[in-house]
Amino acid sequence: MKRRDFVKSMGVAALASSSLSVSSQSMAAKAEFNWKMVTTWPKNFPVLGTNANRLAKTIEQMSGGRIRIKVYGANELVPAFEAFDATSRGTAEMGHGAPYYWKGKNEATQFFSALPFGMTAQEVNGWLYHGGGMALWEELYDSFNLIPMASGNTGVQMAGWFRKDIHSLDDLKGLKMRIPGLGGEVLKRAGGTPVSLPGGEVFTSLQSGAIDATEWIGPYNDMAFGLYKAAKNYYYPGWHEPGATLETFVNKDAFAGLPVDLQLIVKEACKAANMDMLSEFMAKNNQALESLVTKHGVQVKPLPDDVLKTMHRLSNEVVQELIDRDPFSQKVYASYNSFQQQAMRWSDLSEYAYMRARKI
Amino acid sequence: MKRRDFVKSMGVAALASSSLSVSSQSMAAKAEFNWKMVTTWPKNFPVLGTNANRLAKTIEQMSGGRIRIKVYGANELVPAFEAFDATSRGTAEMGHGAPYYWKGKNEATQFFSALPFGMTAQEVNGWLYHGGGMALWEELYDSFNLIPMASGNTGVQMAGWFRKDIHSLDDLKGLKMRIPGLGGEVLKRAGGTPVSLPGGEVFTSLQSGAIDATEWIGPYNDMAFGLYKAAKNYYYPGWHEPGATLETFVNKDAFAGLPVDLQLIVKEACKAANMDMLSEFMAKNNQALESLVTKHGVQVKPLPDDVLKTMHRLSNEVVQELIDRDPFSQKVYASYNSFQQQAMRWSDLSEYAYMRARKI
Repeated sequence: MKRRDFVKSMGVAALASSSLSVSSQSMAAKAEFNWKMVTTWPKNFPVLGTNANRLAKTIEQMSGGRIRIKVYGANELVPAFEAFDATSRGTAEMGHGAPYYWKGKNEATQFFSALPFGMTAQEVNGWLYHGGGMALWEELYDSFNLIPMASGNTGVQMAGWFRKDIHSLDDLKGLKMRIPGLGGEVLKRAGGTPVSLPGGEVFTSLQSGAIDATEWIGPYNDMAFGLYKAAKNYYYPGWHEPGATLETFVNKDAFAGLPVDLQLIVKEACKAANMDMLSEFMAKNNQALESLVTKHGVQVKPLPDDVLKTMHRLSNEVVQELIDRDPFSQKVYASYNSFQQQAMRWSDLSEYAYMRARKI
Repeated sequence: MKRRDFVKSMGVAALASSSLSVSSQSMAAKAEFNWKMVTTWPKNFPVLGTNANRLAKTIEQMSGGRIRIKVYGANELVPAFEAFDATSRGTAEMGHGAPYYWKGKNEATQFFSALPFGMTAQEVNGWLYHGGGMALWEELYDSFNLIPMASGNTGVQMAGWFRKDIHSLDDLKGLKMRIPGLGGEVLKRAGGTPVSLPGGEVFTSLQSGAIDATEWIGPYNDMAFGLYKAAKNYYYPGWHEPGATLETFVNKDAFAGLPVDLQLIVKEACKAANMDMLSEFMAKNNQALESLVTKHGVQVKPLPDDVLKTMHRLSNEVVQELIDRDPFSQKVYASYNSFQQQAMRWSDLSEYAYMRARKI
């Protein structure tokens, strides 16, 4: 889902400004806090960007207009991947992105996005809000003068679009696939070649055969991006991103300058946005999946079990090396993994067993 | 999970009042709106009641003390199951419960709680927030002068505690089980005897053999209730309540009397509470499950496939008869079922396939 190159290739989005600016203007006279939100998404990017817009508007309205938040798409105020630094130093008061975008700052940020073969959205929210996860995330961002807030989740993603079928591990050997981050590292160990590509080149590269496969997000965003026109084999499940958390980060000094009621409004609005985005993905992905299959001839296929089993083993290796080289990652993973081991036993009897039962 | 009799047997809980009253008092001087929240839970009831307390406190704090909300446990101001009527007529401005408690008002309320073999929490939130569900719920409650808000979810529950093993459908014949609502109706059609019991009698009845089985909620609440001391066979999955939505309902006139910023604060706080409760259940159920198994010798067992298959068929019959006799139920179910059929196809490739993949 990594969007660095996509954002670069998009530049400033051409879409008109949202209705937000209208309500903002009428509130401007009495606004006590004029904030900027810098996002890592092209302006109004489906679900991810529109959710950031809605979050800003909701905070404004709950504050009775005391906070005004102007949302900037990627590259409008700062480049997409400078949102973190810009908010850290106070150029903007808040930002919206995905924690693993900042792995160059600290590799431990990746644990707050999604981990290959890690927790689902429901599990990870249990860990964040009631299992100690948020405290660790706050500790990590504190050194960057930021306060993190979970504010969205994609749910389990798709494994991606493939020109040829994947029958066995042999089919991964030499496979050129656009897949970033830890997932890409896992593919490399399986004999594949993870490729970095500008987002604007993904479609044409897949269509021409310059790459053999690409992952993106899930049915809704993938359909909007037109990937089904370049390859028809749509594999599941998204072992590499089984529930990616999206984030809002707030400059610590700006946050400290808010009265306590507005501080809580910002925090609760993010928690509500976390619920809202996952719900929106659920509603839109299931509609898009149907369109892809019934209208666009997409072949939806499961990755073979032996492929998944090997990817799982290789994922564990990649994570082990990560925590071996970074002490804070080790600390976060100890908490994450302890929660996941217990949560999986419960998910197995509850969500999983139930979803199996209704298919019998 | 139905608590009518349990609440009656508990009476007013002996637990000390929460810290809420302290902050409330300091805010009382400037409060513009002094509201009452009547709940269907014994005061401070684990997760369900404490979440209602937290919701009230959060709204107060987000409003800067402009709304003060005094929370009443069941029977403190009105009996548990008069919360709906009391809020409808304005004795209280808001209430907290579960929609299916009000099936005597309109059977369609049950579709907004949980349906046997219906949607999971993640799916149902997709339907409510982005699939038309909330609009139908609002339409239903409008005739009662109430505005509903989803504000919590249990996730998939457990099937219950059984004195003897369930090997086949024959073991359900004559089975006396405490199981309310649609689930009880399904058990009856399978040859069992659904029993209604005061909550305070559930434990002793199960221990003495007066009943053969009982369902309750999930590991955390069931452990607190001590059910593992009366029966050791703990069956899954909770086919009868695969993700029960909890609700806040607000008196329409009281809501209309709030300025728009406070209206949105109430709504967003409920949405955040919806995320929070499910996360809390995830964290606490997985810990409790481990304690039940490792410390209390509980045997966790799956219901046999043929039992589940038959219960599914019987559930469809029960729902069909419900929608045949009630036009509004038919309208709601058309929307619910249409969303579920699509959502299941997506869940199958995403959450389900992923949870299966990581077990390989």
